[in-house]
Amino acid sequence: MNAQPSDLIRQTQALSADVTRPISGSRKIHVTGSREDIRVPMREVELTQTPKIFGAEINAPFAVYDTSGAYTDANATIDLTTGLPAIRAAWIAERGDTEQLPDLSSHFGRARATDAKLDHVRFPGLRAPRRAIAGANVSQMHYAKRGIVTPEMEYVAIRENQKLDAIRDAKLLRQHRGESFGAALPERMTPEFVRDEIARGRAILPNNINHPESEPMIIGRNFLVKINANIGNSAVTSSIAEEVEKMVWAIRWGADTVMDLSTGKHIHETREWILRNSPVPIGTVPIYQALEKVDGRAEELTWDIFRDTLIEQAEQGVDYFTIHAGVRLAYIPLSAKRVTGIVSRGGSIMAKWCLAHHRESFLYTHFEDICEIMKAYDVAFSLGDGLRPGSIADANDAAQFAELETLGELTQIAWKHDVQTMIEGPGHVPMHLIKENMEKQLAWCGEAPFYTLGPLTTDIAPGYDHITSAIGAAMIGWYGTAMLCYVTPKEHLGLPDKQDVRDGIITYKLAAHAADLAKGHPGAQARDNALSKARFEFRWQDQFNLSLDPDKAQEFHDETLPKDAHKTAHFCSMCGPHFCSMKITQDVREYAKEHGVADDAEALERGMAEKAAEFRAAGGEVYRPE
Amino acid sequence: MNAQPSDLIRQTQALSADVTRPISGSRKIHVTGSREDIRVPMREVELTQTPKIFGAEINAPFAVYDTSGAYTDANATIDLTTGLPAIRAAWIAERGDTEQLPDLSSHFGRARATDAKLDHVRFPGLRAPRRAIAGANVSQMHYAKRGIVTPEMEYVAIRENQKLDAIRDAKLLRQHRGESFGAALPERMTPEFVRDEIARGRAILPNNINHPESEPMIIGRNFLVKINANIGNSAVTSSIAEEVEKMVWAIRWGADTVMDLSTGKHIHETREWILRNSPVPIGTVPIYQALEKVDGRAEELTWDIFRDTLIEQAEQGVDYFTIHAGVRLAYIPLSAKRVTGIVSRGGSIMAKWCLAHHRESFLYTHFEDICEIMKAYDVAFSLGDGLRPGSIADANDAAQFAELETLGELTQIAWKHDVQTMIEGPGHVPMHLIKENMEKQLAWCGEAPFYTLGPLTTDIAPGYDHITSAIGAAMIGWYGTAMLCYVTPKEHLGLPDKQDVRDGIITYKLAAHAADLAKGHPGAQARDNALSKARFEFRWQDQFNLSLDPDKAQEFHDETLPKDAHKTAHFCSMCGPHFCSMKITQDVREYAKEHGVADDAEALERGMAEKAAEFRAAGGEVYRPE
Repeated sequence: MNAQPSDLIRQTQALSADVTRPISGSRKIHVTGSREDIRVPMREVELTQTPKIFGAEINAPFAVYDTSGAYTDANATIDLTTGLPAIRAAWIAERGDTEQLPDLSSHFGRARATDAKLDHVRFPGLRAPRRAIAGANVSQMHYAKRGIVTPEMEYVAIRENQKLDAIRDAKLLRQHRGESFGAALPERMTPEFVRDEIARGRAILPNNINHPESEPMIIGRNFLVKINANIGNSAVTSSIAEEVEKMVWAIRWGADTVMDLSTGKHIHETREWILRNSPVPIGTVPIYQALEKVDGRAEELTWDIFRDTLIEQAEQGVDYFTIHAGVRLAYIPLSAKRVTGIVSRGGSIMAKWCLAHHRESFLYTHFEDICEIMKAYDVAFSLGDGLRPGSIADANDAAQFAELETLGELTQIAWKHDVQTMIEGPGHVPMHLIKENMEKQLAWCGEAPFYTLGPLTTDIAPGYDHITSAIGAAMIGWYGTAMLCYVTPKEHLGLPDKQDVRDGIITYKLAAHAADLAKGHPGAQARDNALSKARFEFRWQDQFNLSLDPDKAQEFHDETLPKDAHKTAHFCSMCGPHFCSMKITQDVREYAKEHGVADDAEALERGMAEKAAEFRAAGGEVYRPE
Repeated sequence: MNAQPSDLIRQTQALSADVTRPISGSRKIHVTGSREDIRVPMREVELTQTPKIFGAEINAPFAVYDTSGAYTDANATIDLTTGLPAIRAAWIAERGDTEQLPDLSSHFGRARATDAKLDHVRFPGLRAPRRAIAGANVSQMHYAKRGIVTPEMEYVAIRENQKLDAIRDAKLLRQHRGESFGAALPERMTPEFVRDEIARGRAILPNNINHPESEPMIIGRNFLVKINANIGNSAVTSSIAEEVEKMVWAIRWGADTVMDLSTGKHIHETREWILRNSPVPIGTVPIYQALEKVDGRAEELTWDIFRDTLIEQAEQGVDYFTIHAGVRLAYIPLSAKRVTGIVSRGGSIMAKWCLAHHRESFLYTHFEDICEIMKAYDVAFSLGDGLRPGSIADANDAAQFAELETLGELTQIAWKHDVQTMIEGPGHVPMHLIKENMEKQLAWCGEAPFYTLGPLTTDIAPGYDHITSAIGAAMIGWYGTAMLCYVTPKEHLGLPDKQDVRDGIITYKLAAHAADLAKGHPGAQARDNALSKARFEFRWQDQFNLSLDPDKAQEFHDETLPKDAHKTAHFCSMCGPHFCSMKITQDVREYAKEHGVADDAEALERGMAEKAAEFRAAGGEVYRPE
């Protein structure tokens, strides 16, 4: 441990103090599965009793999905220099289809591991990598196709169910019938359903065998919509410790996966620290590091350099790779007349390579070779949209859809190798053109999970692009997108700070939830029901604790009503006692009870429904130009 | 002037210093109409030349819609104690159908005007009110139905066109074909089109004859989507000067109308100060003030008190009244089993009155009497949705739609009197139930403009409800809603401060613009095109100046790239020179030009289109469960 740089040790302390306290108003619980070592984490929110005037009801604790890992567990001790426990190690070993390698397989990895100049930044006690034994395929898709339900699949089923029975018992299950546009949402999640979705490629469970610290999660249109947060030290100054802190901060607010877009001279060591301490899947864009290896000269990239980079990162435990294999030579001219050309970094790197050599992209020509690497570690594809539109003007153009077609072809090849695959999507798209993106992706890519950046629905609000994009994200999530890549307020302008990351994540959590509600995901409305009931009953603290950002909600409330007494007052700061509509609704209820109208409210409702029907008919007449 | 309270004088200075400087990177211009006194304000953004490496193009100045009034005009002098010039006074007088009254008509107004205790807060030099001469109807709808094109209508046509010819000359007119769901968007706005839309009730031009300071604007589904901002001193402490400051702040960021929801003992005087200094239409909810007159005891409200309040406010110049005449006795029990009951203040006040007396609402029984008042001053109806849902669970229920049916009936009555009318809408609605709201409103209310609060698409993000609601607002705006009432981050939690107001307004401006783009409003995409072109060419300053919040964009950019030099650098902070995709796109363009592919890009595109078609067919096969 003495070899460890003091700043990382300090950071370990800092973490404990800063981002590792339990989330306000909730405690970590674990739901155990069919075996003792399947322990699925959730956050349980304790709720207070309904005030007497509203009926003095007992409100059962409410469990919410939790991505924050051990960091928010009051009973866990955190030491970044040892990393998180390898909860999946036994499951991986049991399968007997992997072996521990004597040494790293990549030249680059080996060189870094033995370079004394890196001792001060290297993660202590590097674990020897695992790889599939010769001829074996260790992807969850491979197991799924053979009918094998892995512990990872059972874990995910429990996690997605979110204690549905408790929700039913608490009478919070009532929700609107959704519109899922042909998705196949089950009434409850089962391990077998999870297996079937993975087998048919409609969902992925990204968990590299070299990232046994990860808590299994699933990405697919028939599961809860997920969100990704990006981190990365583009700024030369940002230290390894800061990147780990950013990751912990991101999952605290709800990031389901994190992409490490780090660049700079310690990119390899930074990634190791992040992986050893991350309970969520980590994604990367390997071409960024490959480009660093040729000093930023895209034309000097080679398949060998890229291949070594894939193996280097696969053996560290990266769970999914963004690979822009759809940027083909023939498509590049299609971007020539665009308003904003090629805006994807990876896409532009490959475009430059293709032009420089006037040859087909090596990512495309070597795609099957890449598949061989992916299945030996269970790394999932995130097929990159290198030709995504960077402006409203360029939305849904020939370049974009030409690439999407190719991503569909590549999906079929990946599936032939049982490699888990998702597809990346735009970008900048006006609202009325969003659905076409989803429909083409579902049709051309065989329902492989769609993973979109926004899309942004206008170009004119820099500084607010987390919002312009949340509008598109919520809509495309409703239409069938499985994971939404967050956008922060700094998009197009600069590098996000901690506050920007929090704003971006909460914004995307609410967009993803809006999509779950609209799709009619089983139990999705329960949290809205619980929070609105608390709001109606002036259970302020419960309202805060059930919200996506309890700290922000409480802080905003206290600005106007500082006294703690007010938090249980039966009116709020906006209207005061005279105007309180909630108070008046109580009068309505009492009146209704006295006059027995509450009981024939249904009768009245039926009457109204008939009236409504008449009116629709009449409506046709009313609605007529003069 | 000595009678004026010093704090108002101070505020006048404060205003000049704080919110009245020109908006960054633009200057006020005026487009003159068919007569010299029709001078339509716009903000013109000066653009720099395209850098040489991108072609050294000249970029013409770009004009944007402007709601900020004289406050941002470098050539205007502001004195709150004298108010804004009465730009419409001549137009109103010319029509010869109004008379100046010797005194205020309302008992309350007269009492306030002569109460010496109010001298220190009263607006100096109260103007005598105008009213229609006996038997006359002075509503814009009345003129429109008779084929009269008023100066207000011409003003609006020029304002909505946004210098379309300049946009065409700048080659920025190119945009996607929209989906307007049966709206009737013209290729360009003409005074005659404006007249026709008002005549058929599909748009309103709210401008009380006693608010001649207002700059005409229009609200209708075939015009730019508008937004409203609410102000109001619920906090007893907030002074009159602060409320005026809030109004000026709100229009600075883009509020098209402002609703004054003030309560408290100086509600009447506060309103006078706001109206005399407001260039945008002002709306109110008269029942709030009526309730104050009976010390908050809803059951003591009477038609006479309410009637006197309508006249009091009409003679001050309020442009539209929210009136909850659709909350009928029979509908109240329908809310008894809701999760959040009645959440509208006005709705709950009327519900309480109806229950207390077990009688039909006096707003409903006296509706024609109200129409008589409205048409004597040209006050527009905003028929309130007192039974709107306050939670996802209560969305689209019997109570809500029963009221909407009634608002449709009342619209027909208002139109019989040629009174301009819009309809208020929800509320909390999950995405998949939003369209039903719009379709029913269009059918039942004869396409009268819809004016919605959000809707919020989830309940679980207090502190971020400007965003949960912007998702619903953008969608319903696309479907046909004419005006969006903003929601701030403090919704459900407390009273918004200045920063919250700014966040709420910019969020709603971008949502409204997203809707204009999706509907295919003529020229709507031009600003996106101009900004994206600036972004692609690294014209940072132009990008900031064209955005909805230039200050925020610049501030965020400068956090990461403080040096002014960088603002013209040909790469940005996110990627640095190595990764710059914009730079690489230039290589693509040069390559394409050399190989002459740019010119047959269309040919290539056609080829791609065919390929895409093949793929859609093939898609049916790919997309098949195993």
